[in-house]
Formats: sequence, structure tokens, C-alpha cells
Amino acid sequence: MHQQLNIGLFGFGVVGEGLYKVLQQTPSLKAEIKKVCIKNPGKKRNAPESLFTTNKDELLNDPTINVIVEVIDDADAAFEIVSTALRNGKQVVSASKKMIAEHLPALLELQNTTGQSLLYEAAACASIPVIRNLEEYYDNDLLHSIKAIVNGSTNFILTKIFEEGLDFKQALLLAQQAGFAESNPKLDVEGYDAVNKWTFLLTHAYGITSGPNEILFNGIQNIHATDATVASGKKQEIKLVAQAQKLLNGKVAAFVLPQFIKQEDHLAFVKNEYNGVVIESGFSDKQFFYGKGAGSFPTASAVLSDISALRYGYKYEYKKLYHHQPHSLSQDIFLRVYISFDDIALVPKEEFEWIEEWHANEDRKYLVGVIAFSKLKNSNWWKENNNSLILTPDPVIEETETRKLKKRSLELAGIG
Amino acid sequence: MHQQLNIGLFGFGVVGEGLYKVLQQTPSLKAEIKKVCIKNPGKKRNAPESLFTTNKDELLNDPTINVIVEVIDDADAAFEIVSTALRNGKQVVSASKKMIAEHLPALLELQNTTGQSLLYEAAACASIPVIRNLEEYYDNDLLHSIKAIVNGSTNFILTKIFEEGLDFKQALLLAQQAGFAESNPKLDVEGYDAVNKWTFLLTHAYGITSGPNEILFNGIQNIHATDATVASGKKQEIKLVAQAQKLLNGKVAAFVLPQFIKQEDHLAFVKNEYNGVVIESGFSDKQFFYGKGAGSFPTASAVLSDISALRYGYKYEYKKLYHHQPHSLSQDIFLRVYISFDDIALVPKEEFEWIEEWHANEDRKYLVGVIAFSKLKNSNWWKENNNSLILTPDPVIEETETRKLKKRSLELAGIG
Repeated sequence: MHQQLNIGLFGFGVVGEGLYKVLQQTPSLKAEIKKVCIKNPGKKRNAPESLFTTNKDELLNDPTINVIVEVIDDADAAFEIVSTALRNGKQVVSASKKMIAEHLPALLELQNTTGQSLLYEAAACASIPVIRNLEEYYDNDLLHSIKAIVNGSTNFILTKIFEEGLDFKQALLLAQQAGFAESNPKLDVEGYDAVNKWTFLLTHAYGITSGPNEILFNGIQNIHATDATVASGKKQEIKLVAQAQKLLNGKVAAFVLPQFIKQEDHLAFVKNEYNGVVIESGFSDKQFFYGKGAGSFPTASAVLSDISALRYGYKYEYKKLYHHQPHSLSQDIFLRVYISFDDIALVPKEEFEWIEEWHANEDRKYLVGVIAFSKLKNSNWWKENNNSLILTPDPVIEETETRKLKKRSLELAGIG
Repeated sequence: MHQQLNIGLFGFGVVGEGLYKVLQQTPSLKAEIKKVCIKNPGKKRNAPESLFTTNKDELLNDPTINVIVEVIDDADAAFEIVSTALRNGKQVVSASKKMIAEHLPALLELQNTTGQSLLYEAAACASIPVIRNLEEYYDNDLLHSIKAIVNGSTNFILTKIFEEGLDFKQALLLAQQAGFAESNPKLDVEGYDAVNKWTFLLTHAYGITSGPNEILFNGIQNIHATDATVASGKKQEIKLVAQAQKLLNGKVAAFVLPQFIKQEDHLAFVKNEYNGVVIESGFSDKQFFYGKGAGSFPTASAVLSDISALRYGYKYEYKKLYHHQPHSLSQDIFLRVYISFDDIALVPKEEFEWIEEWHANEDRKYLVGVIAFSKLKNSNWWKENNNSLILTPDPVIEETETRKLKKRSLELAGIG
């Protein structure tokens, strides 16, 4: 039952070093770091020099090492390490969301053929045990929807915009100073990090194995202070929300986009660098999970929980993928969106099913309208030309008959 | 991997019937209710008559039934059913918190000797998967504290007192009308239900197997509208909080008592009949789980998640009890408490280490002071004579040296 774990660790940054310290202080875990592979041998580190090597094969080919933990920053190198480790009969814990998102089909195949366990709770929402809860609960017939804040940097920036009235650039600077955003913040700010996480969370939630490039997404780079003013006026906030929901046609709609959130919504509780997940399932109403989503200690703690699970032989079974009828993504929905813009000529009004609000006299002009999901998926106008697209609360419309009737009635009224 | 589950169900009240419907609508679960044992055969029920029996042996002795699900209201009968089922080689899902709290040692023994799985996620916090998260995460060296609202009825009553300015009796009546409190509300209101749940949550959190009568507890029956006024004046609320925290001496302090909660505390987010759990662990800061804690559908959904887990052979391993050094309860702490009272003569001031506040001119008099945990545990004055005891935020004091110094300095100042 209690497997002794001899760990080969890749990476000794803040997460790796934190993990090393915790394992030293927690003998009951029966897990010991045997060797650490690093890139730069010259750096001064708080651990005996004999622990370190720059030769990855010293870890990957050591038969006494039965677990590889990988907390490096390079997705391609991480994939190479993880796949070699699995093939060499080792169990693996990884925190590389980008690597997992981009290589999920290959990683699924490797887990099947090698029979080894690959765990990556740290890769999404860090301290919130979202992957294992999605895996173990919510039989997929019953999982109606998931809405989540999965990127702490953008949430920190949005919080500062709302609470301190900063504009996007000031808030980003503050996030960088506080260590919540990289010096090159593109991955976080433009939504790439969030959609990467969403990719494999959708696998555990619904058995969907689409790649990140198949999911409609954007970040918060186009949010204006005036958008925040509009939100506050409606007693709402703006959050970067990753969302998935089951449709009447049995498929799933999924996207990662900025969204207006009512102040009484659970996600409005999620401030600063925190993450939160709201799950609506068959009969349990809404469940809300909340915790730190990034940072060295929360990430190390999630890695630790995976290491702890390996002692008991835990593996993801990918139940929704292998033991149920997996779901597929659908584009057959409409979204109610808010668009603010400088120049209406650069907003293709004819693309909309109908337009419900029109504000031409504000500091910054905006409209609210309903548009086909596929039209957003296949175009870029809404993230260009200083246009800003934000979903309204409950943005998904799927009853197309109602929609057609509404369009017709608006046409008749001369507004459509 | 996919075990076909043939279920014998005890009880066909709102939970039992809800479960029956969900299983009918969810063929992917591969779980079928073969027979339902009921007490009163005369009642009209929404299911074929052939499904029902009043003879429990028809379920317990049927070799084709491999799972017993028990959602009845009688703790003694439930224990009889559950223990017979385990001995007869069946897996069991139970929702009877009182039964589990009172018979935990026997149930642990039965699980060990029979090797059968007994799951009871529905017995605490219903739709919040708290038991399995405590079981699977938070290696016990790392679990600093848990604070939780585990009783929806009392939380509903307290919410109404705070939001609508009702007094306790009016709020209780409203809770009864809304179906959130029994006609005999003693079990909920006086804290028995909460301490029962806390008993086995402590087992999964810390490996503690003390019975409910070993845990210091009270309910909300003595809370006055004036106590709520004091709380509001401090921007706080009052909640019935189940709390456990690790002490410097390596033991655990645990209690279920009303507590002042700051408005920015996660537990203040928990309103009405909802439950919430805040976990502080080594390196992941605070995690917060929130959801419906009672009611037919949330309870049925938790039962369902247990049934679903049985398909994959899941068992509680009681890791903190069997695989770690289990913790024991400690009385070696002091609590900072608020006491409001009618007559100071009925408050034994000499029992306090020191008194920090004294309000003799309010509508209702109160004091704030520090008292040894053991003195509360071994006396009843604080729940009698219309006295009302409420813990202050962060009530636990364990540094006795500081305490002694403080007492000495207060004595010197003539205040102690």
C-alpha cells in the first residue's frame, strides 16, 4: 500500500525548491528526492551540490528512481522528459499546462501503452483539486456546466481595474510588480494560458479531447476602463471566464472569453490572484471551489498531493472519455455579446442575428447583440481595431426557434 | 472495471425516491434498484408495487444484490442494516450521520474484517465532496485547520436573523415553513447534528476517532437579537462553526460553537441553507468549498457519487488513521469568548483567565474574556440561565506563557 517513492526532479525554481523543502520536512510521505536535473549548473542553490546534475539520463535511466516530477518552464523539453519517463516505466507528476494541452492525445496513448500513472493537478488551478474532483464526481450525464476563473494574473489585473479604477496598462504593471504576471505577459493576458488549462479540464469533465486551437478564446488585452464603468453601472464585474455547458443536442459548448459577472455570482467572490470553479450538476445545484491558482507554494502543494496519491497507486481513469460516451464540442449556439468600439464601421453589424442595445453617446460607444458562435470562431474583427468583446451574463442561446421568431418580430418592428 | 451494481434500497422518502428517478434516467451508471425496503406498505408511491417489500431480509439475503443503499431516518435500524449488509458481503452507501457518528469504531472494525466498502459522502455537507477530499488530499502533517458550516438549518436561521432582523423564534418558524428545520428542531438547533458530522469528518481529516460526546459543542438556541446587533456593529456575523486546528503540541483542538465571523471571512459568504468548508493546509493557503448541504436532491446527488465510486471499487482508506500517526484531541488551549447574560451573578467571572471587555450599559450586558477550554468542557453555566456564549474570530490561544504574562500585567494594572 505504501510505496516508497524515489523521485527524480526536473527543475529547481521556486516550485522545485519549495517541494524539496516540504518533502524534507514531511517524512511520513515516504518520498525522497534522489536527484535534481537543472539547466544551469553555476547557480547557487540551497541544497547539497551532489543532488544536482545537468544530465537528464541520470534520472530517466536510473532504475532506483520510480517517480519523475517535472516542474520546468519549457513545454517541448517537458514533453520529451515526461514521455521518456513513462516509457521507462516511471510514474510522472507534471505541472506543465502548455505541454499537457498541446500533447494530450500522445500522453493519453502513452499512459495506455505503458500503464504508468501521469498526474498533473498542479497544471490547473494549483491548490484547487479540480481535476480529481471532475474525474471522480459528476457522472457526465449530470454535469450541466462548469464556469471557472483559471488564470490568476488576468484576474489580478481585472480586480485592480475594478477596485482601484486603474486602466489596463497600469493594472498590468502592478501585476508585474507583484509577481503575478510575467515580464512578457502575452500568454496570460491574451488567454493562451487559460485556454491551455481549459483543454484538459474539458477532457476530465466531458471526455473532450479537442486541442487548444479548437476552442474559441480571447484574453483581456482589449478591455477598456470604460467597459469597467459600464459593468459597474450594472452592478457587474468583468472576469476572464472559462465556460463549458451541455446543450440540448447532447454536445458541449466551450469557450474562454471575458464575461460580465453579476456581483452576486460566485465568481465575483474570486478576487486578485485567486481561482474559482463553479460546477452545476444534475441534482446538487451549484458547487463552488475556491483557492490560490498559482504561485510557488500552491503549485508545490498540488504537486505534493499528486505525489501523495501515487503512494496509493492512483491513476486518472479518464472516466468521461473511456467509460462513458465522450462528448464533442458544438458550434451550434448563439452568444449574447457586448462590443465596445471606436468606429462602428469596423463592426460588421450584418453578422449579428439581432442587436438589443445601442449606446452611441457614451465615452466609448458600445452595442449588445446576439451573434452565431461560428461567426466569432471564424473571424477576428472582434479582437482587432480596438474592438472589445465581452460576453453578457448567461450568454449562451440555443433555442433557435425562439431566436428566429424574435428576429422576425424585431424586423417587423423595424429594429432588427 | 465497470461493476454492474444491483441495489437494495432502504427508505423511499424524498431522497430515496429522487435516487430511484435519477438512476432510471442515467443508464450509463449501470446501477439498478432491484428492491426497496419500506416501513409503511400502505402509502401510495411513484414506482411499481412489485419493487417494494417490508421484509429487510429480502434485500440483505439476496445474493444478486451487491450494494445496499440506506437513506432511512432511524439511526439504530440503520446500524443494524449497514452492519448486516457488510457482514453479508455487500457494499454499502449510507446517509445516516447520527448512525455513523455513534457507531464509527464498530463500522471501522466491520470494514476491516469484511473488506467491504462503506461510503457516506451524503452524511456530511451533502453536495460538497468534503469526505473524499479530506481523505485524498492534505497529508495530515500539512492540514493546519478546518472551519466549516455543516448544518444548513441553523445557518438559514442565522441568515434570517442577520438579514431580516428577526429574533431566533421568528427565524426558526421561517426555517420550519421553508422546510429547512424539523418540527422538532432540537437536533439541528442545539448542535447535535453538526457535532455528529464533525465526529467523522475529524476521522477523515486527522484520524481522530473520538465520539460526539467527547467534542465540545453547542447550538444557536441561546443567540439573542442583541448578540446579532453587537456582531453587526463590528462588521461581523454569527455562524455555527465546526472547527479543528492543529496545535503546537501536535494534538488537535476541535469544537462546534457559535462564532463571530468577519464579513471578509469565506464563511460569511455562506448564506441560508448552504454549507461551506475552509481548509488551511501547509502550502496551499486557504481553500474554500461551497454547496448545498442538505435537501433531497443534494443528498441524492451525494449518494449517487458514492454509487458511482463503487463501480470503480473505491473504498475509504482512512489514511490519516491507518497510514499516518493519528492525532488525538487536546484540551490544552484557551478560548477567547463573548458571553452575553441577564445576570452577572450567574456568570462565574473567577473562571476566566482574564476579561478584556465589559459592557454593562447595553440592551443586554456582555463581556469578552479568555477561559480555559477544559473549564467550558466540564461545565454548563455558559449554556444555562439565558447566558449566550459566542467565540470571537480566531478564538484559540495556545501560547500559555504569553497568557500568563498578560494575566500578570493585567493584575498589576488592577484590571485582571
